[in-house]
Amino acid sequence: MAELALSASRERVRQLVERNRFKNAIMTVIIINAVTLGMSTSETLMASMGPILNSIDMLALTIFVVELLLKLYAYRLEFFKSAWNVFDLIVVVIGLIPTGGGLSALRGLRVIRTLRLLSVVPQMRAVVQALLDALPGMGAVIIMISIVFYVFGVMATLMYGEAFNEWFGTLGRSLYTLFQIMTLESWSMGIVRPVMERFPASWMFFVPFIIVTAFSVLNLFIGLLVNTMQSAVEEEQRDEIHELQALVKSETDVVDAHVLELHKELREELKALRREIADLRQAQGSGSAGM
Amino acid sequence: MAELALSASRERVRQLVERNRFKNAIMTVIIINAVTLGMSTSETLMASMGPILNSIDMLALTIFVVELLLKLYAYRLEFFKSAWNVFDLIVVVIGLIPTGGGLSALRGLRVIRTLRLLSVVPQMRAVVQALLDALPGMGAVIIMISIVFYVFGVMATLMYGEAFNEWFGTLGRSLYTLFQIMTLESWSMGIVRPVMERFPASWMFFVPFIIVTAFSVLNLFIGLLVNTMQSAVEEEQRDEIHELQALVKSETDVVDAHVLELHKELREELKALRREIADLRQAQGSGSAGM
Amino acid sequence: MAELALSASRERVRQLVERNRFKNAIMTVIIINAVTLGMSTSETLMASMGPILNSIDMLALTIFVVELLLKLYAYRLEFFKSAWNVFDLIVVVIGLIPTGGGLSALRGLRVIRTLRLLSVVPQMRAVVQALLDALPGMGAVIIMISIVFYVFGVMATLMYGEAFNEWFGTLGRSLYTLFQIMTLESWSMGIVRPVMERFPASWMFFVPFIIVTAFSVLNLFIGLLVNTMQSAVEEEQRDEIHELQALVKSETDVVDAHVLELHKELREELKALRREIADLRQAQGSGSAGM
Amino acid sequence: MAELALSASRERVRQLVERNRFKNAIMTVIIINAVTLGMSTSETLMASMGPILNSIDMLALTIFVVELLLKLYAYRLEFFKSAWNVFDLIVVVIGLIPTGGGLSALRGLRVIRTLRLLSVVPQMRAVVQALLDALPGMGAVIIMISIVFYVFGVMATLMYGEAFNEWFGTLGRSLYTLFQIMTLESWSMGIVRPVMERFPASWMFFVPFIIVTAFSVLNLFIGLLVNTMQSAVEEEQRDEIHELQALVKSETDVVDAHVLELHKELREELKALRREIADLRQAQGSGSAGM
Repeated sequence: MAELALSASRERVRQLVERNRFKNAIMTVIIINAVTLGMSTSETLMASMGPILNSIDMLALTIFVVELLLKLYAYRLEFFKSAWNVFDLIVVVIGLIPTGGGLSALRGLRVIRTLRLLSVVPQMRAVVQALLDALPGMGAVIIMISIVFYVFGVMATLMYGEAFNEWFGTLGRSLYTLFQIMTLESWSMGIVRPVMERFPASWMFFVPFIIVTAFSVLNLFIGLLVNTMQSAVEEEQRDEIHELQALVKSETDVVDAHVLELHKELREELKALRREIADLRQAQGSGSAGM
Repeated sequence: MAELALSASRERVRQLVERNRFKNAIMTVIIINAVTLGMSTSETLMASMGPILNSIDMLALTIFVVELLLKLYAYRLEFFKSAWNVFDLIVVVIGLIPTGGGLSALRGLRVIRTLRLLSVVPQMRAVVQALLDALPGMGAVIIMISIVFYVFGVMATLMYGEAFNEWFGTLGRSLYTLFQIMTLESWSMGIVRPVMERFPASWMFFVPFIIVTAFSVLNLFIGLLVNTMQSAVEEEQRDEIHELQALVKSETDVVDAHVLELHKELREELKALRREIADLRQAQGSGSAGM
Repeated sequence: MAELALSASRERVRQLVERNRFKNAIMTVIIINAVTLGMSTSETLMASMGPILNSIDMLALTIFVVELLLKLYAYRLEFFKSAWNVFDLIVVVIGLIPTGGGLSALRGLRVIRTLRLLSVVPQMRAVVQALLDALPGMGAVIIMISIVFYVFGVMATLMYGEAFNEWFGTLGRSLYTLFQIMTLESWSMGIVRPVMERFPASWMFFVPFIIVTAFSVLNLFIGLLVNTMQSAVEEEQRDEIHELQALVKSETDVVDAHVLELHKELREELKALRREIADLRQAQGSGSAGM
Repeated sequence: MAELALSASRERVRQLVERNRFKNAIMTVIIINAVTLGMSTSETLMASMGPILNSIDMLALTIFVVELLLKLYAYRLEFFKSAWNVFDLIVVVIGLIPTGGGLSALRGLRVIRTLRLLSVVPQMRAVVQALLDALPGMGAVIIMISIVFYVFGVMATLMYGEAFNEWFGTLGRSLYTLFQIMTLESWSMGIVRPVMERFPASWMFFVPFIIVTAFSVLNLFIGLLVNTMQSAVEEEQRDEIHELQALVKSETDVVDAHVLELHKELREELKALRREIADLRQAQGSGSAGM
């Protein structure tokens, strides 16, 4: 009986959190919270209305915690099946981490909460989903680029690490510097020309790296584009072709119906004809007989 | 009666401003004005023929004002229905703002008037229209990028604002710096490397930002491209498919016509046959009867 | 008679210059000349074999001049109808300009001659032609970008020319700086941040400029891509559709032929039937008559 | 007999190296080796476990050498027919070069071995193959860009080599600087503005170079994209069209079958009719005769 009551209350909570008015209320809280978090970056605003901004932030956080607890109560383990819910949970939990005096980094993380707009507004969800859907198709090329990065990173560390400690001192620094070079930012004036002063042949390392990664990224992009285009054109085309198929069917069906009608009519006509001839014969026979 | 005269004069003014010769004259004035505005950037030219250039500019501005007053008179409130008219009005009104001694910024704004070329030449109008038509399809992705910018902007201000006041001191500065980073301009050597000297882990903030925004812009671009391509291919294809549909129809119609012709001829032929058999029977009957 | 002899010699020269062996010889000279011009950039090589390189260069130039004179003699005014010939003429004539002591700029121009490879090798000609063919379709967008450049250039000169003479002092300098900003090179750290220190609102000038030009260039690119793609897909599709059309025709023709055959056979069959009935009737009539 | 035994042992080795378990073992060794090579970039790790890392590296190298010897034994000259095998051979042989004290460059080259992952994992092979397959289609444009680079490189060396020895002193330096300019890295603030201070007209050399190479690279990219897209759409479309063709065939075949069935039935029906009329006639004849 208690079990049943629990189940019924669960159902009611579920209906509550799925109501549009509830969702819109949460969205409004997210937007208000985004604005107050934005305002809290201004020192003059913080000086004049800091306590108000902070209490709005606390209130918003409380609302989010209650919302998630309600959802957890309503869906139990099913809650974790949706990646969006997990995302919501993480960004809210980040806001619960106590931010000590100087840990401005953690204070900054609270604003990640605003990204919930992407999970709450259905149109935004669709856009993000489309971006994520594109990832698996790019898997093989991304792994290939990673291997290339790793190999060039280890090589750069071994070859230039001692002389240019800041840029290639560790594998991590090399990977960061290679990422910078891949984006073409100051690759020559900032990095390769100074390196070439020590190692005149180092352009044979960096220029191929730029060409290979540029070409790979290009292919990543082309693959993505062709996939998107193909499925778009495909759908389009399928409709056109289906329409044409329907036309071919209906047109030939009309002809076929006429042929069949002709067939049927002829069959009856000919049957009638034969019957008449049979009658004629019989009449003749009787005529001959009666003669 | 006065009402009618007014309406007639309105009609005449409308015909005037819609005449091609009128439009070409305005275009010529815009181009001449563009040239004189360009010449007025040269101090030596201004020294020798400054008064002439200024009076040409005044004359052009007067012509534009008269043109717009005529249009306003002719179309009344309908004038504001066209965004191009509103654009023309704004860029002309900007030129009427008095430019005091040192306000060279406002003096510079006068040349915006030259952008009227984009609204006056039909081909240019089509290009701009095509650009603007592409915007709505990008709406969702632009909003998503804006949210990402806002979140990263607030975070950067909270985390790096104190230490790097020039780049991340306020939300506005952070957004500007993030825009610069998105364009990949000096992102590493100019911004992130100095920041990493204070906050060694800050690459975990900036590198994901670059990847997310680059990927989003890429998707924006792909979306735009697929849309344009699709509608282009669609139109093309529709014609081809329609041609094919027409062929299917005409070809099956030929067969159908032949079937129907056959049907009709057979029906008559068989009717004739039955009539003859009936005649035959009657003849036989009468023959038998007469026998 | 002399006229005829002239015409005949012209014909012979024309056959000579159109022979593949002649073309290949010219191509070989271009390549050798390209190599010697490249070698002449090295001071050590010039010191050891400068006179040889120079005389090869003189020889190559002489060959080119003779080649062009032959062509001019053979084709007369028709020579100028081909843009490739005009290009060849210009790059060869540039080599004839006397290069005084310090005019290394003019010396450098001689190497433009090597670009004749693009006009002599048919495959290269096709690539260049394809590039040039793409230009007209981009006309409207290029004009639009030019207008935007002009307007922003004049504005920048009027607004920032005085304070930043090196970047925006004249219209030409402004246009160059704006081109640099369009390519995103050091736009922020190099140009806009310094300008913003004097004019804090100048980002409202430069950021829209970047977005507008980036978006325009994007559209230029998309337009080019869609055009190329469309004509490629079009051709493809046309073949497929034509094949399908042929199939629809042949298939319906088969059915139609069968219907017509049936028609013809039935007509004869029925005619025969009627004849027999007529015979029967006649026979009956004669039978009755004879009875 | 010895010959036969040799051939049998060859067959057995071939089966061994083609077994999946063998391939996976090699892949595991490559990955372990990649990790130890990565770890050997860290000085602290080298200090504590340098000998272990080095002996793992030696072991891995030994395994690779044995693997390649087995393959060479099994396939003999056929081994060299696969470019992947040649690639494997080269990257392993590079690791055999003795690395003297200071030659860290050669030590770095050992990690190229990790690129064998690209040749061992089939999915990676496919990606690399796709990249390489794209190259021939780009051949003509790449040659064109090379010619443009060469011409501009020679010109830049002749014109700016003396004044800007570091950037344009030799043909090689000019080509490197032009590559940097093509990637738009610091082209203006870093290179062209300083050059323009000496040669004010040099923008007429560099800006066209940027536009021509950007446009060529764009066309390279568009060509690649159109090719990929075309073959993707083509395949797609072919299926759709074939389906439609099958439908047209089957539909018209149904109609045709009905026409032929009608034809056959009519022929028999009419034959029966004629037979009956013939019977009738005969009966009449005999009737008349018997009369």
